[in-house]
Amino acid sequence: MSVLKFDYSMSGFSPEYLSRFASTAASADKELANGTFNNTDWLDYPVKIEQTVLLDILNTAEEIKRKCDALIVIGIGGSYMGAKAGLTMIKDSFNTKEGCPEVYFAGWNMSSVYHAEVMKAVKNKDVCVIVISKSGTTIETAAAFKIFRYFLFEKYGDDYVNRIYVVTSSDSGALHEEAVQMGYKAFALPENIGGRYSVLTPSGLLPLACAGIDVLAMMKGAKAAYDDINSLPYEQNDCYKYAVLRRLMDLKGKKIEVFAGWEPRLEYFTDWLIQLFGESEGKDGKGLYPAQALFTRDLHSFGQFLQQGTPQTFETMFSIATPTLDISYEGDKSYAGTNSLIEQAVSIAHSESNTPVMRFTFDNPGAEAFGYGVYFFMRACAISCVLLGVNPFDQPGVEAYKAIVKKLSE
Amino acid sequence: MSVLKFDYSMSGFSPEYLSRFASTAASADKELANGTFNNTDWLDYPVKIEQTVLLDILNTAEEIKRKCDALIVIGIGGSYMGAKAGLTMIKDSFNTKEGCPEVYFAGWNMSSVYHAEVMKAVKNKDVCVIVISKSGTTIETAAAFKIFRYFLFEKYGDDYVNRIYVVTSSDSGALHEEAVQMGYKAFALPENIGGRYSVLTPSGLLPLACAGIDVLAMMKGAKAAYDDINSLPYEQNDCYKYAVLRRLMDLKGKKIEVFAGWEPRLEYFTDWLIQLFGESEGKDGKGLYPAQALFTRDLHSFGQFLQQGTPQTFETMFSIATPTLDISYEGDKSYAGTNSLIEQAVSIAHSESNTPVMRFTFDNPGAEAFGYGVYFFMRACAISCVLLGVNPFDQPGVEAYKAIVKKLSE
Repeated sequence: MSVLKFDYSMSGFSPEYLSRFASTAASADKELANGTFNNTDWLDYPVKIEQTVLLDILNTAEEIKRKCDALIVIGIGGSYMGAKAGLTMIKDSFNTKEGCPEVYFAGWNMSSVYHAEVMKAVKNKDVCVIVISKSGTTIETAAAFKIFRYFLFEKYGDDYVNRIYVVTSSDSGALHEEAVQMGYKAFALPENIGGRYSVLTPSGLLPLACAGIDVLAMMKGAKAAYDDINSLPYEQNDCYKYAVLRRLMDLKGKKIEVFAGWEPRLEYFTDWLIQLFGESEGKDGKGLYPAQALFTRDLHSFGQFLQQGTPQTFETMFSIATPTLDISYEGDKSYAGTNSLIEQAVSIAHSESNTPVMRFTFDNPGAEAFGYGVYFFMRACAISCVLLGVNPFDQPGVEAYKAIVKKLSE
Repeated sequence: MSVLKFDYSMSGFSPEYLSRFASTAASADKELANGTFNNTDWLDYPVKIEQTVLLDILNTAEEIKRKCDALIVIGIGGSYMGAKAGLTMIKDSFNTKEGCPEVYFAGWNMSSVYHAEVMKAVKNKDVCVIVISKSGTTIETAAAFKIFRYFLFEKYGDDYVNRIYVVTSSDSGALHEEAVQMGYKAFALPENIGGRYSVLTPSGLLPLACAGIDVLAMMKGAKAAYDDINSLPYEQNDCYKYAVLRRLMDLKGKKIEVFAGWEPRLEYFTDWLIQLFGESEGKDGKGLYPAQALFTRDLHSFGQFLQQGTPQTFETMFSIATPTLDISYEGDKSYAGTNSLIEQAVSIAHSESNTPVMRFTFDNPGAEAFGYGVYFFMRACAISCVLLGVNPFDQPGVEAYKAIVKKLSE
């Protein structure tokens, strides 16, 4: 039984109608692997990742856990959002897991105040740093690495080099060169995998392992998704069907996809989806706008809009069937039961009011389910982009502002 | 000089063009006060709030600070998002202010896991609870209050009643009645102010005062915004102009407004805006979809979409001119300076590529600026709704799913 269930009964499209697109979906999927695109090594990475790499990650994570009680993970975009999503989905929000360092993310913004606050928070702790960047020249990552490298040097003197771990290109780039020169422990970012498709590489695995997350289970989940998508017939292939449904929504004029989580733990998973879909799809004047909600919070916010506002949205909901623990209020009323009841009611109310609803349910918030979900949505996104007629693996638009930054700096 | 600056030079609309709508904006604003709508008491609340109420809030906050090191604030929607926005904008993200309790928000979702984690986190701390709800029957608030009331009772026995503070209706409702019966310290939620317009009432002021935020400065800021909007001629009246510009974007087919913060501290301010605008505007099949971004993070996420995706968005950006502290990286390169440079470059790149940009700049992230911003945007939102032809103060759509919850529960 799959750890991720899909229900599109409130999408407005029937299984019969969907069945028309079986071969379309299969050909789009085939196109991913046939050499049309670059940067497709993530496609079979769950079965291709070397055991020695996984072992090295596990051993290094143990070393980092022993060395520090605060771990600074420096990265932005794909070198940040996947690890943040996994950490938030799997671990306790307020209570650090025993024996694991507290994780602080840095370099994901350019705020002086934020970084000064992180430095203040870890000042009296034992600190290690993981820096993740293919090139090493991304401005946010490079700036944060500079200040935390100096922070470590001031705190530990020459031993600071033993507290820096890098995930970067294995043969070129500023960070790679510095790692070789200084002797930092380094992990390779596979060359032909782009940032937003890199959670299942050392980019996501190393920080997650340090936080005590079972990355082997995560890879097992990813492999299960890989096997399911490759082997299941269209009627049971939720990945194909979801990719097709997104395009049908688009054609119907539903131009905004709201990724709505029903647990605070899923907030950054939906953030990661926003990057994945937004950056893969938003080009050539096309694409669904990727938005986000957190329920029940946002039922008391723009829930009103989803019910009665401009009818341009559909919702893709995410819930967890078996929360790690349930509590009751007022006698035996269960929190989890009420949350699920409200989800059902909202799905009905919104879909009856011109906001179609699709629902994904994770069996639990564990590492295996997370790994399954990550692979599932990367593949669904890529197929969806092929159906839209755009390249899922480039991001030509992000250069525009960088060119202007350069010009303004001169 | 105002603590909030507005720049619409990259909106695609000229001052000359905007000037055509001077009297339209003024009449819409007048309509707010002329009795057309209910729930408009927030309009002059910054000058009407009684000094005795403010004093009571300040004294109670001191009492709460003495009693506890963990404060649970229970509320959802307008009884949550305003306080969360103020707290995040004004205080340090990681380091609790000395002499003030750590604030945990509860009741803003229906997650068992979240609430169990909060309970675990505060287990060995001294705890007080503030519960905010006009009726007392909102399901999320009521459930969380039940479990934390029991938590306090188990920890403190009969003295638990002295650790509960309520903000509720002053003459009716379940919470009001319980407060009277049990002798909880209670503050009145003004009757004719709806949740999303209530930050400047005890609903927002009490929790913020407990966190060490200067709520008198906050009210001073709100009053300054009130004075500015009431007295400035249209040419200098940014509130009127912003309200008009939103409608012009709408007419131009820009159906998604992205509230984009340039500091992590502004994340929940933009969340609060999403509730304010989404719930006020999204009815009768109308309204701009309220979305959110956090830069520079999201330039590495759906920045690609904003640059080259479906051209249906405009951005309303928020930055802080003078961060509370700056740091440098690589010699004298300033974090704040680079952040600001990137903001300028992105504004140019996006606006040249069919995503118009409007920019608000807070002078600083202090209480006065926050109060100014809160009042400014409540008024701009209400005017904008009148221009759209919808009632800014009702939310008829939120009853739909509640009716289904009731039916499913039977």
